[in-house]
Amino acid sequence: MQSHLAPRKAGGIGAKDGVHTKMQVYRSLEERFARISSIEDAIGILQWDAETMMPEGAADSRSDQLATLKGLAHELLTAPDTGELLALADQDSDQLDDWHRANLREMQRIYLHASAVPADLVEASSRAVSKSELVWREARQTGDFALLLPHLAQVLALQQQIGQAKGQALELSPYDALLDSYDPGLRQATIDPLFAELGAELPGLIQEAQERQKEFSAIQPLNGPFPVDDQRRIGEQLMKAVGFDFRQGRLDVSLHPFCGGSTSDVRITTRYSEANFMSALMGVLHETGHALYEQGRPEAWRRQPVGLARGMSMHESQSLLIEMQACRSQEFVTYLAPLVRETFQGEGPAWSPENLHRILTKVEPGFIRVDADEITYPAHILVRYKLEKALIAGDLQIQDLPSAFNEEVRKLLGLTVPNDSLGCLQDIHWPGGAWGYFPTYTLGAMTAAQLFRAACQADANILSGLSKGDFTPLRAWLRANVHSKVSLMTTDQLLVAATGRPLTAEVFRTHLRERYLGR
Amino acid sequence: MQSHLAPRKAGGIGAKDGVHTKMQVYRSLEERFARISSIEDAIGILQWDAETMMPEGAADSRSDQLATLKGLAHELLTAPDTGELLALADQDSDQLDDWHRANLREMQRIYLHASAVPADLVEASSRAVSKSELVWREARQTGDFALLLPHLAQVLALQQQIGQAKGQALELSPYDALLDSYDPGLRQATIDPLFAELGAELPGLIQEAQERQKEFSAIQPLNGPFPVDDQRRIGEQLMKAVGFDFRQGRLDVSLHPFCGGSTSDVRITTRYSEANFMSALMGVLHETGHALYEQGRPEAWRRQPVGLARGMSMHESQSLLIEMQACRSQEFVTYLAPLVRETFQGEGPAWSPENLHRILTKVEPGFIRVDADEITYPAHILVRYKLEKALIAGDLQIQDLPSAFNEEVRKLLGLTVPNDSLGCLQDIHWPGGAWGYFPTYTLGAMTAAQLFRAACQADANILSGLSKGDFTPLRAWLRANVHSKVSLMTTDQLLVAATGRPLTAEVFRTHLRERYLGR
Repeated sequence: MQSHLAPRKAGGIGAKDGVHTKMQVYRSLEERFARISSIEDAIGILQWDAETMMPEGAADSRSDQLATLKGLAHELLTAPDTGELLALADQDSDQLDDWHRANLREMQRIYLHASAVPADLVEASSRAVSKSELVWREARQTGDFALLLPHLAQVLALQQQIGQAKGQALELSPYDALLDSYDPGLRQATIDPLFAELGAELPGLIQEAQERQKEFSAIQPLNGPFPVDDQRRIGEQLMKAVGFDFRQGRLDVSLHPFCGGSTSDVRITTRYSEANFMSALMGVLHETGHALYEQGRPEAWRRQPVGLARGMSMHESQSLLIEMQACRSQEFVTYLAPLVRETFQGEGPAWSPENLHRILTKVEPGFIRVDADEITYPAHILVRYKLEKALIAGDLQIQDLPSAFNEEVRKLLGLTVPNDSLGCLQDIHWPGGAWGYFPTYTLGAMTAAQLFRAACQADANILSGLSKGDFTPLRAWLRANVHSKVSLMTTDQLLVAATGRPLTAEVFRTHLRERYLGR
Repeated sequence: MQSHLAPRKAGGIGAKDGVHTKMQVYRSLEERFARISSIEDAIGILQWDAETMMPEGAADSRSDQLATLKGLAHELLTAPDTGELLALADQDSDQLDDWHRANLREMQRIYLHASAVPADLVEASSRAVSKSELVWREARQTGDFALLLPHLAQVLALQQQIGQAKGQALELSPYDALLDSYDPGLRQATIDPLFAELGAELPGLIQEAQERQKEFSAIQPLNGPFPVDDQRRIGEQLMKAVGFDFRQGRLDVSLHPFCGGSTSDVRITTRYSEANFMSALMGVLHETGHALYEQGRPEAWRRQPVGLARGMSMHESQSLLIEMQACRSQEFVTYLAPLVRETFQGEGPAWSPENLHRILTKVEPGFIRVDADEITYPAHILVRYKLEKALIAGDLQIQDLPSAFNEEVRKLLGLTVPNDSLGCLQDIHWPGGAWGYFPTYTLGAMTAAQLFRAACQADANILSGLSKGDFTPLRAWLRANVHSKVSLMTTDQLLVAATGRPLTAEVFRTHLRERYLGR
């Protein structure tokens, strides 16, 4: 599909005839990307609707809508003249200010990613993923890796081809090219030493933390039921405290919590259980962290590539900063304990800040990543990172995945995986075609620790604010140093500007030792 | 924007080189229209969301999304090769069956409507309408016609131009061309005698009905409050009884009730008042009639033009058939009365079927169209039809609208309009650019009467079913004779096949006399 620009003869774009001045070339690109942004916004709302509102019988029709809109966005992006316009605008970028130049750089990156992959490969991958996700749901339930194997093998083969195609266009290795899709500028060479440093410490840290736990008296359980209406009310109250703007967003219920929606309309979801309010509440705070980033994007740039969040590591850092760094801190729990006790009319020592904090920082190695605590979670990620890297590179064969997975879990978590449902079949990422995504979770945790440390050092009111449920100082620092910067700089530049150095494992390691070993 | 078909050289489309067989030409059109249908489905969900779920601060962003998607659909439809493909497919239409031929005819009609209007006229009209709607909200509140006048004059001028442009392409008068946008094949020459016949009878009928009402004892009011949860429950119960499929639809709340959503996902809304359950309940039944039509469209054709509902008169006939013909019948009210009495724990003679039926058929001339009863409603439409016809033709000047409007209301309803808020400023249609829409309401009422009469004559179980709350026989007749026919035939052909004759005013007049004069 051609763009919305009027059709013109070959060579017409660059003609220096006064019609297409340099700024007009740039403006026509802005217009095109704004259109793409609106299509993606529409997709965001339709996907939110599918998870929260849509009647079951509408699934096929919704798939048609999403496929059509995704196709249209792709066609607009990879229109024959996009590359030409980008090259032309790039020649004259000295006329542009920092924001415009950064916008052009992001346009270029997005265009390269999209145009690198031939249409038939996109389609083949999309079809393989749909099928493989379907089979995965059954395979996970029965623990039948053999059932999934042929489909997963095909998804992997197509991911390798996509990595190669993108890698060629971006001058990157296939795995780096996949990483770059989720996190611009992220490279294996950056991750390897960070994860090696963390991996060397984790098994000992996990064991020590567990031993230290045993020295305390037993955790007092919080006994429900906790009415859903009360849970929603306190969730919304804390969302407002953190800074969620309900004029441009909503909270709803879905099977799998997420942060989605569209520009100026950020929709987060949670899932309630009457037996346990803490899990939904921490989930809401996690998604609120994501939402705060989205709502903090500068108005003027929201429909342009430079106005998008900086990548998945930075996005995850914002959710983990709110959930893990801020809301599981001693300071915040002092404020939270009486609030939840009052909300749920709790009584007794189980509702003390001390007990609540111990619930929120309990360490217990388990098989399932999404149920993991702060300290064992990175171990799950290290397992997956090592294996997907090897699979993409061809150093590990897909049929050997289960044994390799179980061996890594044994090494890092000290657990013996009893079946593949609790092992390599638990996550949707690989059958779903999201290769290169897993490391961003733990890079996000590291980034969160480093940003939070810098924030607290810059403003002493941040921690004291949290002990009163006041997020204003923290939010102001995040707005100024992260949210408002969107994609103006690279991730590294942003981190250096905000914290004085690029990403390190050190601050996160220190945080874990302080919180879980008390030193 | 070009279509999603690969670009090809001029003349390539028709080349008889074996690549583009006749069937392939037709199939490529089907594919294009299916894509357009998916975009329109997405628009339907986004519009529903805007009325029911969207936070207020997202309005601008949603406007961008809708404008972008509408633009994309328009560009796909009016792509340079669409006309060529249609002409080519038409040459070979002897190879196609009835459904395919009818689909081609509908494609042609939609294409002519869309391509007849130059892009700058579409845009000018869209801008004028946005502005005019905004001013209208204020003008209606204050009754200030002068405030709206310049904007309304501009909307009218642009509607005249659109009517001329479409009229030229379709070989129709401007007003007929506008009518045809909402109701394919509808012409002023058809409406004039029908409305003249009705208009001659209405004032007398309204007066007689009121006099007859006085002969009975006073209507007993139903006293609330009626809890919203109970209202929703009984609404959903009756929706199911009528045949609404909740697997492919929802019921929600919005300020202005509507039937929207998308293919296989029909979403209706209502608005509750604790003081009066009947208005919301009848509103739900009205929208359920619309929904039943949408849900009854044949699966295989839902994304093609031939699979769309036949036009606004037929659509309105389906809502009025359920609400007015079926659900305000003596038979159904016999079933409804004990049901609502039980639901709301009502007591006393106010809850008798007789009193309920009198509430549901109360006649009282008023200023506001949307509050009008079955018998005064057509008078409101006749006023608007006469005036918009004259305005489009240039026989009435826009500044003379208020006095002309008030004069017509006096003649048909016997009322003196005290201010323009209760007069020509009450409806959004004219400032909103929906000229040629009003007559479909009363044509729908006539169609409903004619279809219902034919249905009851064809199957005696229909009326006896209603007295037991059983809509199965009625639904079966509607499915067979209306819903499943979608746009396979013209409206006239459909009516002749279903009722033995084209639309007449006679059956509707008889229905009104029977119900309101008892003869």
